[in-house]
Formats: sequence, structure tokens, C-alpha cells
Amino acid sequence: MKLTKTLPVVVALIALPTLALAQEADVTPPNEEIGYIFTTFMFLVTGFLVMWMGAGFSMLEAGLVRSKNVAMQSLKNVSLFAIAAIMYYLIGYNLMYPGDGWTITNVLGAFSPAVMEPVGGSPDTDLTYASVGSDFFFQLMFCATTASIVSGTLAERIKLWPFLIFTVVLTGLIYPIQASWKWGGGFLDANYGFLDFAGSTVVHSVGGWAALAGALILGPRIGKYKDGKTVPMPGSNLTLATLGTFILWLGWFGFNGGSQLYMDTAGNVADISRIFANTNTAAAGGAIAALILTQLLYKKPDITMVLNGALAGLVSITAEPLTPGLGAATLIGAVGGVLVVLAVPFLDKLKIDDVVGAIPVHLVCGIWGTIAVVLTNSDATLGGQLISIAIVGIFTFVVSAVVWLILKATMGIRVPEEDEINGLDMAELGMEAYPEFTKG
Amino acid sequence: MKLTKTLPVVVALIALPTLALAQEADVTPPNEEIGYIFTTFMFLVTGFLVMWMGAGFSMLEAGLVRSKNVAMQSLKNVSLFAIAAIMYYLIGYNLMYPGDGWTITNVLGAFSPAVMEPVGGSPDTDLTYASVGSDFFFQLMFCATTASIVSGTLAERIKLWPFLIFTVVLTGLIYPIQASWKWGGGFLDANYGFLDFAGSTVVHSVGGWAALAGALILGPRIGKYKDGKTVPMPGSNLTLATLGTFILWLGWFGFNGGSQLYMDTAGNVADISRIFANTNTAAAGGAIAALILTQLLYKKPDITMVLNGALAGLVSITAEPLTPGLGAATLIGAVGGVLVVLAVPFLDKLKIDDVVGAIPVHLVCGIWGTIAVVLTNSDATLGGQLISIAIVGIFTFVVSAVVWLILKATMGIRVPEEDEINGLDMAELGMEAYPEFTKG
Amino acid sequence: MKLTKTLPVVVALIALPTLALAQEADVTPPNEEIGYIFTTFMFLVTGFLVMWMGAGFSMLEAGLVRSKNVAMQSLKNVSLFAIAAIMYYLIGYNLMYPGDGWTITNVLGAFSPAVMEPVGGSPDTDLTYASVGSDFFFQLMFCATTASIVSGTLAERIKLWPFLIFTVVLTGLIYPIQASWKWGGGFLDANYGFLDFAGSTVVHSVGGWAALAGALILGPRIGKYKDGKTVPMPGSNLTLATLGTFILWLGWFGFNGGSQLYMDTAGNVADISRIFANTNTAAAGGAIAALILTQLLYKKPDITMVLNGALAGLVSITAEPLTPGLGAATLIGAVGGVLVVLAVPFLDKLKIDDVVGAIPVHLVCGIWGTIAVVLTNSDATLGGQLISIAIVGIFTFVVSAVVWLILKATMGIRVPEEDEINGLDMAELGMEAYPEFTKG
Repeated sequence: MKLTKTLPVVVALIALPTLALAQEADVTPPNEEIGYIFTTFMFLVTGFLVMWMGAGFSMLEAGLVRSKNVAMQSLKNVSLFAIAAIMYYLIGYNLMYPGDGWTITNVLGAFSPAVMEPVGGSPDTDLTYASVGSDFFFQLMFCATTASIVSGTLAERIKLWPFLIFTVVLTGLIYPIQASWKWGGGFLDANYGFLDFAGSTVVHSVGGWAALAGALILGPRIGKYKDGKTVPMPGSNLTLATLGTFILWLGWFGFNGGSQLYMDTAGNVADISRIFANTNTAAAGGAIAALILTQLLYKKPDITMVLNGALAGLVSITAEPLTPGLGAATLIGAVGGVLVVLAVPFLDKLKIDDVVGAIPVHLVCGIWGTIAVVLTNSDATLGGQLISIAIVGIFTFVVSAVVWLILKATMGIRVPEEDEINGLDMAELGMEAYPEFTKG
Repeated sequence: MKLTKTLPVVVALIALPTLALAQEADVTPPNEEIGYIFTTFMFLVTGFLVMWMGAGFSMLEAGLVRSKNVAMQSLKNVSLFAIAAIMYYLIGYNLMYPGDGWTITNVLGAFSPAVMEPVGGSPDTDLTYASVGSDFFFQLMFCATTASIVSGTLAERIKLWPFLIFTVVLTGLIYPIQASWKWGGGFLDANYGFLDFAGSTVVHSVGGWAALAGALILGPRIGKYKDGKTVPMPGSNLTLATLGTFILWLGWFGFNGGSQLYMDTAGNVADISRIFANTNTAAAGGAIAALILTQLLYKKPDITMVLNGALAGLVSITAEPLTPGLGAATLIGAVGGVLVVLAVPFLDKLKIDDVVGAIPVHLVCGIWGTIAVVLTNSDATLGGQLISIAIVGIFTFVVSAVVWLILKATMGIRVPEEDEINGLDMAELGMEAYPEFTKG
Repeated sequence: MKLTKTLPVVVALIALPTLALAQEADVTPPNEEIGYIFTTFMFLVTGFLVMWMGAGFSMLEAGLVRSKNVAMQSLKNVSLFAIAAIMYYLIGYNLMYPGDGWTITNVLGAFSPAVMEPVGGSPDTDLTYASVGSDFFFQLMFCATTASIVSGTLAERIKLWPFLIFTVVLTGLIYPIQASWKWGGGFLDANYGFLDFAGSTVVHSVGGWAALAGALILGPRIGKYKDGKTVPMPGSNLTLATLGTFILWLGWFGFNGGSQLYMDTAGNVADISRIFANTNTAAAGGAIAALILTQLLYKKPDITMVLNGALAGLVSITAEPLTPGLGAATLIGAVGGVLVVLAVPFLDKLKIDDVVGAIPVHLVCGIWGTIAVVLTNSDATLGGQLISIAIVGIFTFVVSAVVWLILKATMGIRVPEEDEINGLDMAELGMEAYPEFTKG
């Protein structure tokens, strides 16, 4: 690893100035086919990292629920990932990219399964971007991530099948429709100048809104709020929660890095590098902020807050991981960490029971991250960001609420009281996650 | 992640037609050295993904055995991986690729350790493929995977050292010899037109046959079959099993994707993308099929079946992950999921005790996946596939059985009854995996 | 995966000869920009693998401490990773590469935060290496790894905040200063011909020395050494320890492979491939050596020794993963595995309490690996290696000891006896890692 670096040591930007953006170098790739291979392979690598986030959510949630619900929570996470894969193939992908111009005709025509390019490539393939298969693979993982967010909030009391049906609607319709408004060339992109690089709003707040609607309609767990007090229900396995956080941290490099969408030039790969470094430092900022703040507030650090603080930092930098310098990225993440520590008890005050803290992490910090774009990217306007946050939020919350209410009215969404007390594992699955270990 | 996709929305193929294959574009790479770098790096990335599957098997198996055998199961998984690394280096690699033409002379001459190209590259290196080191690294991981399959079936009752000696034979001789028949240019490839893209037969069914031979000779666990009934022996840690499944799912992108063997042209990288997408959707199909089927059969979903269903989907698509469309791949995986749900109780009826369900997943679905090649790839013939499955199966089963019988006759392969009841951890290792936790 | 390999089967080198090194092919990359993209992307991929090692250390340590300290150990691992990220950004990176020529003026001038290249790339960027962001990202992970090593040794008795303050000094000052002597073009590199490819000394022994200084000053855990005997304190979760080992094994491909620093030519990517293969086989050698040796010494294999044996093999090959052949690499790793098995009881004889065995693995094998460079790389001299090991060791040990002593004198570094007995989780965090599981 010997390398004498001769780069000039320059003065750094730690604060949060609006960076003077260098003009995007007007470079054409050295060779179209090579650029195509680079970008396609980049999507595969960043795509498998985002896929890995599915495991991260599963471990995080399994660690933060009580042991009597762990097997069910694991089953939900595997199943929702599989459902997302199938629904995004059947409808979502084409619905999200409704072709040349975002019109009603195009959208209606877009209800069709995804199709990849033929085997062996076609001689007349357009080589300016990436292979369809790689783009589909990458985009699918974002859809799956959105669904993963919901499962944690509603844990320990929701019935399996209504949850899975909601996931069908979320991944097949809700996510792709609103995502198309920004990433499919729709009106948020075209008319409001909405900037959301990798999805603080389009992915994370959407998952958060859907979870919030569910939490309100489902109600809190039995015994969670008693005599005006919040009863702590500690997670059963903090090493799993730690593992889940590390997995998500790792996967996020793919989430944000791949969203550069091109790796065909030196400028693009340098941008992806900035994004990796910023993503990492934002997570660090969030974790440290939560560590210090919980020490100050409660005289003891809180590990679940530190884990959620890291995730909060990651969500916060997701809307704009490219333009901030390392210092700005750290601070954006740190604000996220602070927000989570404040939002968790605030939600409890409202008696909104979010088992794993997904709403503070993904919704609150998703909003913060989307607003923070204006701090470092002069192309964004506060108005455009706020109105886009609102439109996406209202759409997702209302549609989700309608779906939850229909499910509640038809098949019911909550397990019987007795099943909730005994745990979903025995009641709904008939097996336990840790059958040989006595509960304390 | 803004991108207005302007690809025409075309009609999809959901059913299972034999796709009219596009002619492989007759492209030479834009530059030989660049193609060499691309392919070599691709092998390193996909190779480390397959290496990661070793961790996946370890977690899956540790989660599915009872807590008294968990440390031993972990030790076996680490050790077998290390043994595979050394045996494949010492003999396996050269034996699998016995040089120019598969003749007895070549095969006998192939008993020699693997050697990588010199440091710094050689000026006269052939740049049409990839570096020897990367090819060795990638192929080694397939050999290790084969060994991982066996350990799960025989868990909880086999002695450590005979198991490891079997692993020496499997990774040094059995795997590479039969693999050379297909991938080393041997007679299955040359004379039978056998198609097995990434090893439904060559890797997965081989692991399954070796496991089956072992299971028959070793016999079931004490108390597993009593009064004509199968006694459930639930796994001790379903979150570990879930984690293992996610790891395997992730690693499989490397397993199938890297088996394209070239990433030097747009056509090849587009093919690898198709393979990633198909691999993912096949796993999803298998998981969903098992979820629905267990709900219908048993009125409750079975999480271990869903996990094995995902793996079944992955094994099923492995013989041909390239030619199917997304719909066909989903259905091929779904059939795998159904087969697993049916095969597990069927094996129990035969009193073949497979602790983790490796035989249903890897052998049954390995066969199914190999047959399914004919559904989407017109180069495959049902006859060629069936005869190749049979030849590989008979060879592996017979040789494995002979080795198991020799081990049984000489050193014994089964732990004493008392040790089995007390658990292998205390008996063979003198330490427990979870020493501080009371058994229920 | 069909491929008829026609490479000539050549005679292998199993022993440990000094390989006649092929002259580094004097190749210029086919195109500067393409080489830049290759190397930059390589840093991102290998960098995220090294980041993943942070999770590996966390799992390994959480598995090897007793359950009453698991949450705290997890918190320490997440926090130290975050601290490393911030300190390396604020000071470490520029301090490690103090510009053109390693002079006091340059070093003093180097106290400044890291800065990445502008967004979109600059038209006048130097394209002969890689993007600054990717280099920063990759190098940061080495700094974080160094800090991860310390936390394991000092587990179960050190206070959280002093440990974190030490981490600040280690990652901001100690690590980058000594690393600059070799990798920043300092005197060990320039005057002593010191060779340490990926950091057996610069990373691993440094972590080990810092841990040793801490262990001596902190003292052993209560009850660890009683009446002249070592009391075993078995880890609470061996599957987590196994998982951690697999994660570290995987991450090490990035650690060693990325240290090639260039992937712009066929020769460089072929070298990276050799490194991957050698790294893997060294780990295998270490694991097998520990397996056999513990069986011979204790009549039972010891799984924690086998896990540490694999890690020992990895540390041992880190100083020179390129020049050995596969056989030599296996043996270098195997010697590491033997050293660990012998060093663990030796440390106990000295009453140095190293909870996870980090000193045997990272310090002892770090020294061995650095010496072993002379066996296969004729550019290294035994004298140059030994003096460099000594200089780095003395510097790190002395400075670390001073910091530990200051911390001890000011805020105290050890938890009260009662807290240690009850466990750090309840005492310092007020929460347990596994609250629902009764301790046996």
C-alpha cells in the first residue's frame, strides 16, 4: 500500500456553505461500449449491496422485537422481499418509467411486466446507458427497501396476510407511481425542480408514511401506554440489531452510490467516490450525535439510539450525497441523529407505537434530508422541496390509509389479544425462533 | 436517481415458451487488455460473493440444529471451507481442467498443485480470458459450496474427523473429476450436449448425492422416527437460519452471474445482468410458492419451508439462469419451492434424516433445474440432460457410499449414543455455543 | 460455466523458495481515463469490503464476551468505527500523507481536514491514479480496522468513555503518524526499505501494541487468574464469533487486494487475483493448523482457536500477499495458526488478559507476517523488517501507554468492581443484549 501522495493539502470546508459546484465536465466516455460495461457492472454491484439491505432490515427488526415475535418478523422480511421482486416485475418497473413523456396514456399503457434485453445482447443496442437487466435489478431493490421500512413499525401485532397484501399494493402501485413523478420524469421532476438523489423522500419517507398510516389504524401494542406512561419493551437481541445496522450501513453505499446512474467517465466515478465517502461520514455523524445526546439527556448512552442514529445519518444524506463536502455531510448526518433521539419519545407521547423506530429514522430524517439539499445544492429550492415532500406524503399517507382501512374492514389487520400476548410465533406460525431458551 | 427511461414498453413473456434466442452478437471486445481486466475483476467480485455463501451455509445450519450441536456445526463449516481451499489447490483445480483434450493421460498428468501467473503479469500473457488467479479463486468457491451442502444433512450425529476426511475426498477428487466431465471439456460436454450453466447438477446435486449416501449409511438421529411417526426437532435459532438464507441469496448472484465467464463485451455484461435478475426472481418465486403451499397444506405458513423455498428457487434456476425471461424464471423457482415442501415429508417417510433439508433443496431441485433447461434453451435435449444427471448421480453416489463405508469400517462415522444425546458440543468439543443460556 | 481450459499444466511450487520475480511488465494503461475508472471502482469495492470488517470485529467480540457485556461491546464497536471516520477525516488522512517529501514542516502543515475533488470531476484532474474520494474511503477503513483490534482485548472491564477518547487519539494521531512513515513516504519506506504490503505491522501490530499497553495498565478481569491458574471465561455466543470470522475473511480480500493500489493494467489485475487467492489459502492454512494442533495438544479441537487460526493466517499473509505462491501462502498462514495456539496460553501465563485473543492474532502474527516477507520477496531485508517492526512497536506502545496512563490518572479507565461483576450492560447502559434469556 505504498504510495507517496503528492496532492496539495488544501483548506477544508467543515461548515455548511453552498458549495460552488464545479461545472460538470463535458466529457464523452472514452468508448461507448466500455462505458456501458462500466455502468452496467456498477449497477450489479451496487444493486447487490442494496439487496443486502433486506437482510439488514430483517436482522435489525428481529433484534428489536421481543423473542415471542422473532420468527414471524423474520418471515415477514423474507416474504416482503420476495413479494417486492414479483410485483415490481409484474407491474412496478414499467409503471415507474412510463415511457417517453409522463402522460395518462403512457401510464395506463405501462401496466405490463418488465422485459429484459435478449440473450447475447443485440447488435443495435443503445450503449449510452446500461443494460435493462441491470437497471431493473438495481431499481427493484429500492422498491423492496420501501417495503422493508413498514414491517418494523407494525411488528408484534399485525396479522401476516393483511401485511403481505399491503406489501403487494405498496410495491406494485404506491411506490412506483410516486417514484415515477420524480425518477420517471413526472411532474415533480419536470415542474417543481424536485431534487432527491437517492430517495430520502421517494423511498424512505414513503416507507415512513405508509408505516405511520398503518400504526395509526392498527393502534399500539397491548400494554405499551399505561397510565400516561410509556412502558419500555426492550428488543430481544441487540447483537442482531447491531448486525442489521452494519449491514444497512454497508448496503447504503450501493443505495446512494449507484444512484449516480453512470460510471462511464472519470467524472462520474469520482462522483460515486464522493458519495461513498459522504454516506459513510453521515452515518458516523448520526451515530456520534445520538451517542453524545443520549449520554447528556439520560446520563447513559443508549445503544438502540446510536444504531438508529447511524441509520438516521444515512437517511439524511440520501437526498443529496454528492454536493456536500465531508464536513457538511457529517453535520447533515449528525442533525439526523439528533432528530431521532428527539422524535422517538415524541411519537410515544402521541401514542404512536413504532416498534423499531422506523418513523423517526425514515420519515423524520427523510424529510430533513430532503430539505437539507438546499444547503449544498443551489439547484434546489426550499419551495420545490417542501411541496414535493408534501405531495408525496399526502398521496402515500392517504392511499396507504385507505388500503389499511379496507384490509381492516374485510379481513382484519390485528391479531386477537390472546395471540398478541402469547406472541405471534406460536399463534400464527406454531414455532418459536429460539425454542430451547427459557424466557426470563 | 433521475432518469427518464425511454425504452419502448414491450409485451412481456410470462409463460414458459422456448425463447427465440438472439444470435450471440459476434463482437470482439473493444480492446483485449480492457476485456481481460473486466473479466478478471468480475471473477474476483463474483468469487467473493460465492465465498460468502460459506458463511451462509454455516449460519443456516447453525440455526437449524439444536443448541447442543451448534458449536460443532460451526466448526465443521469453517473447517470444510478451509479443507476445500487446500485440496482444490493441491489437486482439484488441475484435475478439473485436465488440459487440451480430456484423455486418461491428461487426467493422470493433472495430479498437481495449481499455479498462478507470475507477479506483475507476463508480457506474453494471453489476454483473451482472465487471470489464472481469478479463475482459480472463482472455481475454488464452487468446490467449497459442494462440501457445504453435505454438512447440513449429516449434522447432530456424525463424528468430526471422518466427516472432514470425507470432505478431503469430495473436494480433492469427487467434485473435480465429475466437474471436469462438463466444465473441463469432458464427455458429458462433448458427447451428450449436457447443459448446466452454473451447476444445478455439477455442484448442487453432487452435494446432495454425497449427503444422501452419507445419510443412508449413517442412519437417522436417535428418536427422530418413533412408532412410525416423525418427531419434529426444531432448529434452535431461526434468525440465524434467516440470515443464512439472505447470505446465500446474495452470494448466488456471484454463483450464477460469474458463470457467464466473460464480461468483456456489452453482450456479456447484459447477459450477466439478466442472470442477476433471473436469479433473484427465482428465489422470490420459490419463497412465495412455499409460503402459499404451507399455508394451504398446514393452515399455517412454515418459515423454515419458506427459507428452503427461496434456496430451492435458487438451485432450480442455476442450470439455466440466462435464457428464461423473468416470468419463466419466477415459475421455475416456484416449482422448486413446491418440490421442497413435498420432498421434506417424503424423505421423512423413507426415514432418511436430513437435518436441514439439504437433499430436497440441492438434490431434488438440482435435478429439476437441470431438466428445466430444456424449457427455455433449445440447445438442450431432455435425453442429454437426463443421462448426464444419471451419470453424475451414479458416480457421486457410488463413490461417496464407498468412502463412507470405508470410514465406517475403519474409524467409525457415528458418535456414541450418549454423546449424541448430550450433544456433540460438550462431547466432542468440550464447549457450548451458548454456555450462559438455560435450555428450556 | 463451460470452459475448456488449455493452459499448460506446469510444475508447482509448494515449498517456500524465494520466487524469481517476473519483471513488472512495463505496461502503460491502454487509456488513462479507463485506468482511472478501474482503479477508482476497485477502491470502492475493496473499501466496502474492509468497512464490512468493522461488522466482523463487532460480531466476533460480541460472541467472545460474556452475555452481561455484549451490548456494551456492540456499542463500542459501532462507536469506534464512527469515531475513526470522523477523526481520519478531520486530521488523519492529511497527516498520513504529508505531501511532497516527509518533512516536519509538511507534517505540521498537514493538520487539516480531508477534501475530495469537486463534483463532476475537474477537466484538469490527474488521471494516473484514482479519485481522491475513493482513496480516502479506502484508507479510512484501515484506520478503523486498527481501532477495532483494541476493543476486543480490553473488553468486559474498561469504561466506555476513556476507551472512546483513546480511540480518538489512536485514529487521529497514532495510526496516521506511524502509517505515514511507511505509506506516506516517510523514513521507514525511504531509509529502511521496509516492506509491508497491506499492513501486518502498520495496521495489525499497531492495533496489537495499543491493546497490549491497555491490557497491562488496565489489568486482568476479576477472577481471571486465581491461585496461579487461568479461569476459562467462555464466550457467550460462538455462532456470532463464527459469523465474525467469516465476515473478516471476506473483508480481507478487500484489505489485501485493494492494497495493490492500481487496477489499470492486466498485470495489476492479475496481481490482485493472486492476492485474493493467497489471502484465502493463508486463512485456510491457519484454520487447519489450529484445528490439528489443538486436537493433538488437547485431544479435542478448539473452535475459538480455529477461528482465531483463520484470522492469524490472514494477518500473517497481509505483509506480503503477492509474491508467495499458493503453497507458500498456505504455509505462512499455517505458521500463524500455530503461533496463535501457542501465544494464547503464554499470554495467560504472563497474566495479560486478552478477552478475544487479539494480541496473539494481530500482534504476534503481525510480527511474523512482516518477517515472513523476506521468505518470498527478495526486495525485503531481515534487518529492515526487524528494525521497522521495532520502531513502529516502540512508538505505538509508548504513546499508547502514555495516553492510557493519562486517562487512568484523570477520569479512570476501569469500571467499579461491582459493575464489572454485574456486567457493563446493566451498569453502564442500563440495558441488556439478551434481556429475555435467563443466564444459566
